[in-house]
Amino acid sequence: MRKKRILTGDRPTGPLHLGHYVGSLKNRVMLQQTYEQFIMIADVQALTDNFENPQKVRDNVLQVALDYLAVGIDPTQSTLFIQSLIPALYELTVYYLNLVTWNRLKHNPTVKQEIVQKGYGESVSAGFMVYPVSQAADITAFKAELVPVGEDQLPMIEQANEIVRHFNRIYKKEVLVESEALIPKFARLPGTDGKAKMSKSIGNCIYLSDSADTISKKVKGMYTDPQHLRVEDPGKVEGNPVFTYLDAFDPDAQAVEALKEHYQRGGLGDSVVKKRLNEVLQTFLEPIRKRREELAQDPSHVMFLLLQGTERAREAANQTLQEVRQAMCLNY
Amino acid sequence: MRKKRILTGDRPTGPLHLGHYVGSLKNRVMLQQTYEQFIMIADVQALTDNFENPQKVRDNVLQVALDYLAVGIDPTQSTLFIQSLIPALYELTVYYLNLVTWNRLKHNPTVKQEIVQKGYGESVSAGFMVYPVSQAADITAFKAELVPVGEDQLPMIEQANEIVRHFNRIYKKEVLVESEALIPKFARLPGTDGKAKMSKSIGNCIYLSDSADTISKKVKGMYTDPQHLRVEDPGKVEGNPVFTYLDAFDPDAQAVEALKEHYQRGGLGDSVVKKRLNEVLQTFLEPIRKRREELAQDPSHVMFLLLQGTERAREAANQTLQEVRQAMCLNY
Repeated sequence: MRKKRILTGDRPTGPLHLGHYVGSLKNRVMLQQTYEQFIMIADVQALTDNFENPQKVRDNVLQVALDYLAVGIDPTQSTLFIQSLIPALYELTVYYLNLVTWNRLKHNPTVKQEIVQKGYGESVSAGFMVYPVSQAADITAFKAELVPVGEDQLPMIEQANEIVRHFNRIYKKEVLVESEALIPKFARLPGTDGKAKMSKSIGNCIYLSDSADTISKKVKGMYTDPQHLRVEDPGKVEGNPVFTYLDAFDPDAQAVEALKEHYQRGGLGDSVVKKRLNEVLQTFLEPIRKRREELAQDPSHVMFLLLQGTERAREAANQTLQEVRQAMCLNY
Repeated sequence: MRKKRILTGDRPTGPLHLGHYVGSLKNRVMLQQTYEQFIMIADVQALTDNFENPQKVRDNVLQVALDYLAVGIDPTQSTLFIQSLIPALYELTVYYLNLVTWNRLKHNPTVKQEIVQKGYGESVSAGFMVYPVSQAADITAFKAELVPVGEDQLPMIEQANEIVRHFNRIYKKEVLVESEALIPKFARLPGTDGKAKMSKSIGNCIYLSDSADTISKKVKGMYTDPQHLRVEDPGKVEGNPVFTYLDAFDPDAQAVEALKEHYQRGGLGDSVVKKRLNEVLQTFLEPIRKRREELAQDPSHVMFLLLQGTERAREAANQTLQEVRQAMCLNY
């Protein structure tokens, strides 16, 4: 039986952090044998809100690739590729724009929320407004059946599926394939400051490439229970990111449970829990950092792997594009 | 000295008529030696409001090409090409969308007017709204310095030039070239019904491919001066399309002047003027129709000529795209 296809990826705007690992990278490593996985470094999408800073995007293509390879994404099993090098994606985007009303784009909940978050207001670019259509091009070009996304991205899948149905209906052929969201169980790691999400702009991230010293410092500075003032006081585990991180990374779940009970009872200092977390993270991140450093010695080899994947991705997308052009009477 | 570049073209939504001839085709034949002329059969643009009818667009690509060749556009002097076969245009469109605000597109006067004319209202597609950006891609891909357009299309040139300036400023390089409108002197031929414009949907056109009989019938049915009831009455020349057509097509300007005076004085019947117009148009259109019929015998040769031009156009556009990608740090 044919393996199901997954499309996933990241915008190359910075190195990846533990939040990426928990939310997506870990799953990708797990799924890469059972699924046909396309992993896109979405430089064109990154440019929609970084078009004034293209060198940043360019530099981070390599950084993200290093992160991928370091955590164990295998370029012979997964297809790693650079979005900007797939011509079919631009072309599909232009065609799909005809299948979506201007109004529909204006009311996309994810986009509306992001416009507020980024403070764009009236100056929002057309590129940003149409990025759901670009994403539909990405998903459908690879005929991806599964797209790993957070809950907040569900409207994107919905938009893509609307385009799929509209296209197949108008052109009277089942060319495009609908996709489903694959919502990860352990979706989101809070920031070191306890905020809901790790975010580079807030500066509350632990990066996969952080040095041992940096990790120690960041763990020491982590937010805990602000009411837990003296060691003997009972402490809260909920909303305490130190415990959330232990849940995510400590292989000894029983030991973590015991620590939680002790902390809640009182008599367990933050520094002890942080010491354990530091050990756990150092053990987890050291081999990743080492592999990353080794790979970084030979960036042209990493680029070679990316371009190899890009070639495979280009073929897959071109196959779809040909079917699309045929259906649209554009097959000259 | 390098010849200046012109970009021009037509949407393949129907065969071309005398209005096209007067407004653009005639100029193209005249200009093709002095300028480097790119003539685009704009099938992608035609799809923005014909996406539900792709076969119509496809069929008219050949029809428009036949019209071009029949009126004397020389495929060895002008570069005739099919828009959908130039990948650079899709890619530039996607990049340029980042350089234009959503709001700016909403307020494009030409687009606003067309939305009203076509009765789109709230259901206007995103593809239609962004077509000025696609046009900017067309113009800049060929670094066209001159773009023949009617007055109503001036906002399109303005939009393209804004993108050019924005791009060159952000990416700190004079990659793209501003263009100027080339507004034809004899801009617009009225319809046979006296309406301002020949329009296929109104059915007031004389096509370059019309048979001799059809031409005669259409000329006989033409609108004249509705007050000119009896031969002896004085008639109006202004707003009388029969005289406008004579101005445009009768090689004997003096004879036309004499007819006009006689008509205004009274004593000249519509049927006499129409008879002359019919002769003039038959003389003008017969060789065009003959050439068109000959060419239509071998459509694969016409397609071959189009694909040859498309190859040249693709090279020119790719050259620009490479410079664009370099400036945007996308040169992998």
